[in-house]
Amino acid sequence: MSTTHLWEREILIDQRSRQPLFLQVKEGLKNWIRNGLQGGSLSEGDRVPSQNELSETLRVSAITVKRALNELQREGYIQRIQGRGSFIAKKHKLELKLEHLYSLTTVAESFGMVPARQVLELKEVKASRRVVRYLEIEDDVPVVKLVRLRLVDDIPLAVDTSFLPLRLFPELLMDEHSHGALYDLMKTKYGIEPVRVHEYLEPVLINDFESEALQVPVGSAAMLAERIAYSADDVPIEYNQSVLRGDMCRFSVDMHKGSLSG
Amino acid sequence: MSTTHLWEREILIDQRSRQPLFLQVKEGLKNWIRNGLQGGSLSEGDRVPSQNELSETLRVSAITVKRALNELQREGYIQRIQGRGSFIAKKHKLELKLEHLYSLTTVAESFGMVPARQVLELKEVKASRRVVRYLEIEDDVPVVKLVRLRLVDDIPLAVDTSFLPLRLFPELLMDEHSHGALYDLMKTKYGIEPVRVHEYLEPVLINDFESEALQVPVGSAAMLAERIAYSADDVPIEYNQSVLRGDMCRFSVDMHKGSLSG
Repeated sequence: MSTTHLWEREILIDQRSRQPLFLQVKEGLKNWIRNGLQGGSLSEGDRVPSQNELSETLRVSAITVKRALNELQREGYIQRIQGRGSFIAKKHKLELKLEHLYSLTTVAESFGMVPARQVLELKEVKASRRVVRYLEIEDDVPVVKLVRLRLVDDIPLAVDTSFLPLRLFPELLMDEHSHGALYDLMKTKYGIEPVRVHEYLEPVLINDFESEALQVPVGSAAMLAERIAYSADDVPIEYNQSVLRGDMCRFSVDMHKGSLSG
Repeated sequence: MSTTHLWEREILIDQRSRQPLFLQVKEGLKNWIRNGLQGGSLSEGDRVPSQNELSETLRVSAITVKRALNELQREGYIQRIQGRGSFIAKKHKLELKLEHLYSLTTVAESFGMVPARQVLELKEVKASRRVVRYLEIEDDVPVVKLVRLRLVDDIPLAVDTSFLPLRLFPELLMDEHSHGALYDLMKTKYGIEPVRVHEYLEPVLINDFESEALQVPVGSAAMLAERIAYSADDVPIEYNQSVLRGDMCRFSVDMHKGSLSG
């Protein structure tokens, strides 16, 4: 079938790799779907190679292929229809995986979407009680408030408010670069990088300001993600509040019984 | 001060333990606060031993104590007031930590609250497309639907809907024990235990049914937590949808830069 051409060349399996085979098949198919959708050689609804085709061509067991397809279905990349096969699914919500420090930019790109930012506010402010508490600073320490609108494919996704100690980023107020990726700027210009974050997730309702910025009705469901970012020295370097549209993304996490905990 | 009596005997520090000292101080203080609140020897607003008192009595550095107090403040156990000291904070939202498989029962108990459940519905149903997909079963396989109201201190917290393959839990429909902890029943009666879960978190608005069950207005903010639980053999054994009141809990997660990922 024309829709499946090239997959044999794009999905490479390394039998000696330490990565489980089903993961290799899954990631291979995922990249083939993403690249195909982005490049235009594939469309939503196109057929995905069958379990037998995959198993024979890639020389892996039927169970391995089944597990890979199950995971792709669960993650919303494909839809399986009994007796007819698997098909590329309609675009779905951005999935923010809570396994390691995520960035909206990277997640959007991995979904084949174009991320963008607009600075809505950039000024020095007096820290609120909450900011003082999370940044572990004294009451009278000046902080920079940076409010940005985050977009994907020109659709507003989140209102993102960062508070940073001015002492650590003395030129941030004048910085043209604050229009780019904040963490990149922190790292390249100031040599400070978040290596650990503590994040809180709470459901909230969209308020007037967010409604206008995000172009959704007041009272819509949104996720409030509060993040405290720490440097390698374990110093709080950013307190961030992001309000994300509930219709555009969801968070996911893998958990095990009785994992190691502090 | 009478409010701090006994803490010297309750917070035990083991200098040779592999657990960091600040964690020992933090956990010790947390347990002292919890037990005190539960037992009635402490109340909200009571003073917590000062940094100096803790440092001297426990023989740990001021930095260690400061870090422990900072974390307790961030987690909402204490409130620090400049120049006056630290005080036991007002009761706050339940914090559901996404570090390992959590149970509402255990979390509530760790907050000194009394968890309870009420069965709202228990019957055999035809699996919906979504249930078929997540449980990786055939279309015509019978599943058990169990809807429970979860409460803490007699306040409704969540509407919790589980779908389980009847084949794995053949007597579940008749089971009086389904009024108890579901995972305990799965383990003790059927020898099947969830060891890994995949969970999705999305903000949603409370609907009519949930409004009545949870005693909050229609359109309030809530968290939809969808969970697929897997047995040790990696077989999906439960698909769960929980709608949790946004005013009663929040989720939290620690993330590191570039942790290992699949």
